[in-house]
Amino acid sequence: MDLVDKVQSGSIRGIARTISLIENNSPQKEDIIDELYPHTGNAMVWGITGPPGAGKSTLVDCLIKRERKQGRRVAVIAIDPSSPYSGGAILGDRTRMQKHSTDEGVYIRSMASRGHLGGVSVATGDAVKILDVAGYDTIIIETIGVGQTEVEIIELCDIVLLVLVPGMGDEIQAMKAGVMEIGDIFVINKKDCDGADRLKTEVEYVLGIKNALTGEEPNPVLLASSKLDEGIDELVEAIHDYLKKAQTTGRFEEKRRDRLEKEVYKIFSSKVHELLNIHLDIENNLGEWISSILNGETAPYKLINSKLNRFVKENRII
Amino acid sequence: MDLVDKVQSGSIRGIARTISLIENNSPQKEDIIDELYPHTGNAMVWGITGPPGAGKSTLVDCLIKRERKQGRRVAVIAIDPSSPYSGGAILGDRTRMQKHSTDEGVYIRSMASRGHLGGVSVATGDAVKILDVAGYDTIIIETIGVGQTEVEIIELCDIVLLVLVPGMGDEIQAMKAGVMEIGDIFVINKKDCDGADRLKTEVEYVLGIKNALTGEEPNPVLLASSKLDEGIDELVEAIHDYLKKAQTTGRFEEKRRDRLEKEVYKIFSSKVHELLNIHLDIENNLGEWISSILNGETAPYKLINSKLNRFVKENRII
Repeated sequence: MDLVDKVQSGSIRGIARTISLIENNSPQKEDIIDELYPHTGNAMVWGITGPPGAGKSTLVDCLIKRERKQGRRVAVIAIDPSSPYSGGAILGDRTRMQKHSTDEGVYIRSMASRGHLGGVSVATGDAVKILDVAGYDTIIIETIGVGQTEVEIIELCDIVLLVLVPGMGDEIQAMKAGVMEIGDIFVINKKDCDGADRLKTEVEYVLGIKNALTGEEPNPVLLASSKLDEGIDELVEAIHDYLKKAQTTGRFEEKRRDRLEKEVYKIFSSKVHELLNIHLDIENNLGEWISSILNGETAPYKLINSKLNRFVKENRII
Repeated sequence: MDLVDKVQSGSIRGIARTISLIENNSPQKEDIIDELYPHTGNAMVWGITGPPGAGKSTLVDCLIKRERKQGRRVAVIAIDPSSPYSGGAILGDRTRMQKHSTDEGVYIRSMASRGHLGGVSVATGDAVKILDVAGYDTIIIETIGVGQTEVEIIELCDIVLLVLVPGMGDEIQAMKAGVMEIGDIFVINKKDCDGADRLKTEVEYVLGIKNALTGEEPNPVLLASSKLDEGIDELVEAIHDYLKKAQTTGRFEEKRRDRLEKEVYKIFSSKVHELLNIHLDIENNLGEWISSILNGETAPYKLINSKLNRFVKENRII
């Protein structure tokens, strides 16, 4: 039985191996994804983002529980801040896996936020397709929404939950403002902490301005406590309501089309990079080029433009 | 007087305008950077990274004060988490500028961590060159070291300070582990808080393992309080010691060469993207391509490979 069949039959080992092939940018990758592609589209993809320490992981655990109660199978992709050199994910599936390890309807996988040859967001998008075809109804992507890559990942989702907590500093405020635009539902977690109500009011105020400008309906802002398991039922209801409404208005299909556009563009870019690396043999030539800059023979952009022109003219791209 | 002259004369307006040209990926950009390039290399570039809420900004303020006392001119580039759509930096120079606004020897500039056409790390690298030529002795780059981009930015520096604080959660621990490998000096900020000494011991323990493996000298781990302005003199001394030693051992030159390699490679990549965008006219064609995937006529990788092959064969790249 080949990997595509294994994924379709929902084999855990098949899924794990296929995601690893994606992560390692294996040559088989493209055929596998193309074969799986026509079978995708059934899973709902939820993005959970927010600053570190906002309690996203415990919240995800609460959401898994609710989805399982409704009989839905759940997969989680946790994007981990990772070592730039070792490339491995650090938070790891270890502790989190244990909690749900006896439940066959839950699959949890960490992916490192760095070090993927084809780009992290491409790898995450492909992992979503695999889990979708493998029969998971709800796929949750959890990430810290700070950098460019993290936002790109979150843009893969049908719905985005932004998790905030009261009492964090200036940078958190800035992050909040930065990711505010990508949230569909806003969760004020740790609602028992001082300042939760005030934060809710603030968020509603900012969203009010945004909604007045765009004419969109106000986004739900919900108080919750993932630690005390409070406000979660309301949150899950709001999520499903949002998704149902988006399907009725056509916004859902629109978002999915946008997602595919972004994915195709990204794959395109990463493939061009591969070609460039192979055919210009940058790895072996870069040292020499740098020496010529350091010797004062040339300057950075001048060098790059001349190499690029030669590369194109000699048609050495293929 | 053209922009290059203005930058060389240290004109604040000239600097600001040139950095804006860089950010907007203006056509003049390449010639300006190439002209400035031979005059670069005098400034020391310090990177300050760490989780949000670690007190990096106040620490930077303390460092500015010390450097100014020694008669050095200081420029700060603050990489801000930013809106994916509006593209603007949010923390802003506003409040921070005020503090040093009467001091001509200090220049502070925010750059958004997203939305630069040529890539954030390329833009930051070019901004460093501009500030270097403009006569700033110390250039401080401040960022949250989480994503790929942020790490790339930090890799532009001659020395990297990793700022940590006691009492943060699991994700902070993971981040710490992730960025540990890129720190040269480790600062345990908020040293008056519970757990600061324990965190110092932990960091030293992890570094001990790393140093045992690499055979490198142990990295300094210092307790400080940017809020109380304590431990800062020791920190500044450690920074200058590190830089002096790196210059003696040749590590400094090696790092700068590495930096130039990474920069050239990145510029290369972004230029290839530009070519691709212009000549394949992706913007106008992507919609049609997506429709053919959604109709089931083709699959993502199949489509991309066929377009890429045609693109290359027709030599439409130039």
